[in-house]
Amino acid sequence: MENALKAAFIRLARRRRGGAQPSDGDLAACMLNRQPGVNAFKVISFEGGFHGRSMGALSATRSKPIHKLDIPAFDWPVVPFPANQFPEAEHAEQNRAAEARSLEAVKAAIDAHPDEVAALIVEPIQGEGGDRHASPAFFQALRRLTAERGVAFVVDEVQTCGGGTGVLWAHEAWDLPEPPDMVTFSKKMQLGGFYCREELAPVEALRLFSTWLGDPLRGAQLEVILEVIERDRLLENTRATGERLVAGLEDLCRRYPGVLSGARGIGTFAAVDFPHAARRDAALTALRNRGLEVGGSGDRTLRFRPALVFALRHAAEALDVLESVCK
Amino acid sequence: MENALKAAFIRLARRRRGGAQPSDGDLAACMLNRQPGVNAFKVISFEGGFHGRSMGALSATRSKPIHKLDIPAFDWPVVPFPANQFPEAEHAEQNRAAEARSLEAVKAAIDAHPDEVAALIVEPIQGEGGDRHASPAFFQALRRLTAERGVAFVVDEVQTCGGGTGVLWAHEAWDLPEPPDMVTFSKKMQLGGFYCREELAPVEALRLFSTWLGDPLRGAQLEVILEVIERDRLLENTRATGERLVAGLEDLCRRYPGVLSGARGIGTFAAVDFPHAARRDAALTALRNRGLEVGGSGDRTLRFRPALVFALRHAAEALDVLESVCK
Repeated sequence: MENALKAAFIRLARRRRGGAQPSDGDLAACMLNRQPGVNAFKVISFEGGFHGRSMGALSATRSKPIHKLDIPAFDWPVVPFPANQFPEAEHAEQNRAAEARSLEAVKAAIDAHPDEVAALIVEPIQGEGGDRHASPAFFQALRRLTAERGVAFVVDEVQTCGGGTGVLWAHEAWDLPEPPDMVTFSKKMQLGGFYCREELAPVEALRLFSTWLGDPLRGAQLEVILEVIERDRLLENTRATGERLVAGLEDLCRRYPGVLSGARGIGTFAAVDFPHAARRDAALTALRNRGLEVGGSGDRTLRFRPALVFALRHAAEALDVLESVCK
Repeated sequence: MENALKAAFIRLARRRRGGAQPSDGDLAACMLNRQPGVNAFKVISFEGGFHGRSMGALSATRSKPIHKLDIPAFDWPVVPFPANQFPEAEHAEQNRAAEARSLEAVKAAIDAHPDEVAALIVEPIQGEGGDRHASPAFFQALRRLTAERGVAFVVDEVQTCGGGTGVLWAHEAWDLPEPPDMVTFSKKMQLGGFYCREELAPVEALRLFSTWLGDPLRGAQLEVILEVIERDRLLENTRATGERLVAGLEDLCRRYPGVLSGARGIGTFAAVDFPHAARRDAALTALRNRGLEVGGSGDRTLRFRPALVFALRHAAEALDVLESVCK
């Protein structure tokens, strides 16, 4: 994440310099942390977004105070995330309005800082902020807007990469007019990194570098994992299981309306809400006591993040356990 | 490194709050990156220091423009490093004066920002900045000064940890009046992290956390490495070999005075200077062509970072190759 943001800053500085080499003054200023134009560079992120905890990434993270309290941060803009309501059919109009408001806020944040916004960063699903979703149309609009304004469009797939949404990269499902400028990954990919369009890669060697850049052992692990995903058709499995899981959660929402609401998911990357945090936390304990390992997300959300081998029969069993707890 | 700095910020904020809980205003402000007092928190680092490349660590790094150019940085103070001259016997007075000047600068930087300096960070040997050394007395004085002023004394042992200096941690050789507040490590320890005195560890759970915190596989690798270090007496080997290597470099400095100067080292963590960068770079190529794998450090320094199995006969062979290139 830090390297992706740095690549975006480097691209913006190159553009502002118009192809000229940095001056001796630039070189001296950077050694004193005093590059006035550069220090005003910004990354836009969304309320509820989580992008990591090192000090650059943390300045873009907007999840919870426990992550950010007492740590110096850069003065970067934050904009609302649509946080669409479910079931989609009942909230279509309201969701489209929320997405339009969010897009307006992004536009305003970019235009308020001409030539200072290096990147916009967004998760396909806000996995730490309460499993909050937006539509493919919203992401298409973000892609078009950032392309027009020359802002790097960074898709943070740290949580969504690796197949949980039924495709290897969640953004594959968006039908974008052009690819993201950068995609960050970690977790299921066994190591953290990003890939990017060629114009985002720094021209000079060693501007992005570290001791642990690349790890052949983790690369070898990932290769085997990808082979197994293909051999065992685990993406297809995840799509089928996810449909069953989300349909089951929707059914439980209808049958336990005072307990569950807002069933949603892509693949098995699924979630459902409780009325409030205390009820959710009690449910988490009860579910774990009955053998169902699930997690919390945001304030009152229960999230599913099963492995790719999670099959129809596991989904049925998980739904049974959840129903017993609802009862 | 990021986590160590964050722990220092968290400790300073706790002290400033006097044990009170953060206010609702504090919690709201941090979500907007607007904690006025906290955003003024500072880390002091030394000219030539290298502490990493993520945006918090990078703000403390002061090695080369290629690391820092075009990346926003926090407004933190930088102070001169003594960069003692060698042979020590010929430069004792000048070195003590350089150390005194550096200590005065540290004192001035702390006192210029009362209650805002969370940490002072220093490498035992500036491994990226030209293999620059200071005396144990200098580090003792830094330890005393930071203890008096309530500033966390962070020893960055990312390069020096793991035995290359003849002890597992380079700061063991300083005979400090009290231990460092934090020690960061990586590289030879197989994974990155820090250890700290108890009062530096955040009280609340999950304030320092990430996907890759801890790695059992790397821990298992490290355990075997430590067993082999002990079994094969590799620290003793490194001390003996290092003495031979540095003595040999000193001898070459005497015999090739227009080519080599400033031989220095602790254990096999050794270095020698060329007159200028072009000469050093040409020597690096020539040495590698003759089978000696060594690296550059700073502008005109050649550095040795052999494995712990590097023995007397290897040192003799390396010195022969270096002499042939000097000729």
